[in-house]
Amino acid sequence: MKNEQATSQVRDSVVISEVGPRDGLQSIAALMPTNEKVRWIKAMYDAGVAEIEVGSFVPARSLPQMADTDVVVQHALELPGLSVVVLVPNLQGARAAIQSKAHKITVPVSVSRAHSQANVRKTPEEMIRAVRDIVHLRNTESPTTKIEVGLSTAFGCTLQGAVSEDDVLKLALAATEAGVDECGLSDTAGYANPAQVKRLFKRLKQEIGSHAGAAHLHNTLGLGLANCLAAYEAGVRTFDASLGGLGGCPYAPGATGNVVTEDLAFMFQAMGVHTGIDLPKLLAARSVIEAALPDEPLYGMLAQAGIPKNFTAPTHD
Amino acid sequence: MKNEQATSQVRDSVVISEVGPRDGLQSIAALMPTNEKVRWIKAMYDAGVAEIEVGSFVPARSLPQMADTDVVVQHALELPGLSVVVLVPNLQGARAAIQSKAHKITVPVSVSRAHSQANVRKTPEEMIRAVRDIVHLRNTESPTTKIEVGLSTAFGCTLQGAVSEDDVLKLALAATEAGVDECGLSDTAGYANPAQVKRLFKRLKQEIGSHAGAAHLHNTLGLGLANCLAAYEAGVRTFDASLGGLGGCPYAPGATGNVVTEDLAFMFQAMGVHTGIDLPKLLAARSVIEAALPDEPLYGMLAQAGIPKNFTAPTHD
Repeated sequence: MKNEQATSQVRDSVVISEVGPRDGLQSIAALMPTNEKVRWIKAMYDAGVAEIEVGSFVPARSLPQMADTDVVVQHALELPGLSVVVLVPNLQGARAAIQSKAHKITVPVSVSRAHSQANVRKTPEEMIRAVRDIVHLRNTESPTTKIEVGLSTAFGCTLQGAVSEDDVLKLALAATEAGVDECGLSDTAGYANPAQVKRLFKRLKQEIGSHAGAAHLHNTLGLGLANCLAAYEAGVRTFDASLGGLGGCPYAPGATGNVVTEDLAFMFQAMGVHTGIDLPKLLAARSVIEAALPDEPLYGMLAQAGIPKNFTAPTHD
Repeated sequence: MKNEQATSQVRDSVVISEVGPRDGLQSIAALMPTNEKVRWIKAMYDAGVAEIEVGSFVPARSLPQMADTDVVVQHALELPGLSVVVLVPNLQGARAAIQSKAHKITVPVSVSRAHSQANVRKTPEEMIRAVRDIVHLRNTESPTTKIEVGLSTAFGCTLQGAVSEDDVLKLALAATEAGVDECGLSDTAGYANPAQVKRLFKRLKQEIGSHAGAAHLHNTLGLGLANCLAAYEAGVRTFDASLGGLGGCPYAPGATGNVVTEDLAFMFQAMGVHTGIDLPKLLAARSVIEAALPDEPLYGMLAQAGIPKNFTAPTHD
């Protein structure tokens, strides 16, 4: 079995960034109480998840699910070594994020003009100017805070249809020139296919080098894991995912459907790629969501089929 | 958009081999009436599916679902250009298959000794001897009939656990030396991961060259499409799949769960790989199963989410 041994010596590793407490919870009507959010985050941390997007600093009237983000950040910051991420749509949110001492700020910038207008009533160019202001604020007040831009609708848009790859790369370069640490790509509409994912992440790396960031991929059409594999092959090493696929209903039209954290972690571990994640503990963390949000459907094939007999994964260290 | 144009010029193509009328129907308790099987096969053919495994020649007492295989083959042979495949477990079945004038015979050979004994009460070596007898019969009575071996449990076994890759390749070589046209690999247990799929199909090609055959992959752990992508990257160009994932229940423990034909076809078409399949017609073919087997759940993300807006696929020619 020399080939298998050779593979297990390649201890490549990935970071799985849990976005459920932000992306999952903001997509559902129910409110998760603050203490349940904190329990969920702690359970994910205990399972070895190294980065969690815990909330967003947006007006509470538009997203009441995120009104407690500041408190949630304070709790998350008590977990040693956890990278605590918050989403902000504008300078005001960035100010709150910096005050909260979250480690990383993520700013969504839509490549699709139609989506950008519908979502934040700004053009992509106006969003890049906002990013520049956010970077300036960070440089002045909290130089160690990381800033990442996530380019939404990078693989297609429900409003606009096709999105130009050149537009994606132009915005990635503009964000990098504005001073962000990382720029990733998001398949907001769930339209991406593996060939496109591989090609676009390769081009992203050519364009902005080590600033190329995370893959945020959806499972709307069932291609979530195949797209993550393609991104991995293009050199991506950070992947957004949501425990139980919370917030995206893959069995409803128009659903978004984040990649399921536990299925993604299983895929990489089965491939011999280190995730730092303890799969049984990760599966157990689903019970926190089930208890707090009994009416929300959870997804995931690993949870249904169970961890295979004799499955050995990289140890949790 | 020069990169996208460059990609669309690469008109690589794959064959999606529908196995639902055999693999799907043999896994469920309900019997599908012969005329409904024929309607289903016709609907798949009309959607552009080029190869269909229409049944198996096994004793009717062990699989009553397959008792009408001979009649189904006769109907399928009336569809010009369709490659009509039947599964046979032994020489007796091969005799019936050759009499039926099916174009291709597929013979399952388990790599796992435990699975082989449980399934056919033979060792893998005894199965290779049976394959040799089947090849001899074919050479004598019907030289144009193709013979393919599918190596079951090639990626792991529910009974035995891990399966040695060297054992897989040894059996592939033995089958090829016995005179079969093709030898493919089957993930019977649904345990395969993309790294393993890529590595093993590459080794298969090194071992038996152009005799390397189809990928028969399951979606038990949600990795079905990612595994198909990995097999494609290793050079595989024929993929088994089942319309609506019939026969495998991905949401039940122990389920098998074939890759869903329409999701697989969508993935390849979205990647610009030619499948010859008309997606709307393929989706419409689900209604035949729904009408004939109203109690069987069907799966598939494309059917749930719908074909994306502005999606353009290679034309059906």
